[in-house]
Amino acid sequence: MPSAHSTPPAPRFDTLTVPKASDVLASEVRERILSGEFAEGTPLPPERQLVEQTGLSRATVREALRILEVERLVEIRPGRGGGAFVHRPGRESLANTVQLVIRGQQIRLEALHETREAIEPACAALAAGRRTQQDLADLDAAHAELVDAGDDIRRFLRANVRWHNAVARAGGNELLIGFLSALSESIYAATNLERFMDTRIREVTAQAHAKITEAIRSGDAAAARRRMSRHVCGFARAAAEVDGRERVELTEPED
Amino acid sequence: MPSAHSTPPAPRFDTLTVPKASDVLASEVRERILSGEFAEGTPLPPERQLVEQTGLSRATVREALRILEVERLVEIRPGRGGGAFVHRPGRESLANTVQLVIRGQQIRLEALHETREAIEPACAALAAGRRTQQDLADLDAAHAELVDAGDDIRRFLRANVRWHNAVARAGGNELLIGFLSALSESIYAATNLERFMDTRIREVTAQAHAKITEAIRSGDAAAARRRMSRHVCGFARAAAEVDGRERVELTEPED
Repeated sequence: MPSAHSTPPAPRFDTLTVPKASDVLASEVRERILSGEFAEGTPLPPERQLVEQTGLSRATVREALRILEVERLVEIRPGRGGGAFVHRPGRESLANTVQLVIRGQQIRLEALHETREAIEPACAALAAGRRTQQDLADLDAAHAELVDAGDDIRRFLRANVRWHNAVARAGGNELLIGFLSALSESIYAATNLERFMDTRIREVTAQAHAKITEAIRSGDAAAARRRMSRHVCGFARAAAEVDGRERVELTEPED
Repeated sequence: MPSAHSTPPAPRFDTLTVPKASDVLASEVRERILSGEFAEGTPLPPERQLVEQTGLSRATVREALRILEVERLVEIRPGRGGGAFVHRPGRESLANTVQLVIRGQQIRLEALHETREAIEPACAALAAGRRTQQDLADLDAAHAELVDAGDDIRRFLRANVRWHNAVARAGGNELLIGFLSALSESIYAATNLERFMDTRIREVTAQAHAKITEAIRSGDAAAARRRMSRHVCGFARAAAEVDGRERVELTEPED
């Protein structure tokens, strides 16, 4: 029988996760940006006003803005006329995250090529249907730069990435553009390209680009898709073999 | 002639952007996570130790951890045994950003279908080459669920998304998995599916899934790619037409 002095055991509580005020405010602003309510470049109210309007502390408001800045949903500009401006996430956010994942998961080069083989033929086909005069001018300029590069391999490679990105842009699909530009950069960074890009491979690349550009210009989606597919698959195969051989054959379409 | 009292004009400075201490620390930790130095789940040193080791203030260390948390590169667990744990960005980071971009850019449903048409056939082809027993079991379970759903459209649709994601997982490419799962969710959310998914379309969908699963099981990459391509293109076409018609025909492969 319990004595008058005995007390029942104190009830136990589990760890509670309480939402932070800064997260609550950041979510609210995030939703209003993503819903399209605020256009790109809209200034948010100044810190002082946000404090008044929300009834939250200055530190909380500041932390919420910092969260949105890290998420790249607002851009903080310093100085006169500065403040927090709305930035709608786009292709560069996507490219940035794709690169984080590639690095964070130590994604194999083979998987990057695989992804590119999935995406680029579709981009080329879309480009054939949608290219503007500006897109064609960009493709031509990147191609001229590539042909002009001669033995300057770094210049050749930058022009190569530039041409591939121009194809994606001509396709006009924001998701594919963002995804592909991250892939091109990562493949560029990961391939032992100096050794790989001998004279013959540079020639074959230039020819393939010319033929794909031609298909895009003439609006032939099927040819653009087929030629791009052969081009990127051929490149991937050659890149995979480069460490085992002195000389790599990169075959390209005859059509 | 200047008088002894006149002073030259004060020199002008432009706004300077000084890196914040919290950004510097966050970058340092971010690089060490992405380089692979810290494995998934590695605990970071406690706040107090980070303050000692870096010579930075407690507020700065806290802000740096907060930045990494927002970037999902560390997970903060509260309570006993809690702290900041390394989280390498993976498919869910990618899926999250793809969804941000889809919402932030108000990407059209047509562009989502387009992207899916680019990616899913490639996923199916990869799946045919790599599927494990577990992958096949997952595909079968999702398929059984879909067939079982009968007139429960929500259940049918969840099973549909589950099957498509299982195909991507069987393909084993982290980038394509992350990208596709965001697409499936967004397409699911954006399509007027209740109205769209009549009995006939549900039957055709089930048949297409069965045939694609069969190709994946037998390791026939070409058939898996071709059938998936017809399936997703047919779905997109039907979805685009749904608002203009009472009844939609969704044709599917005979092979």
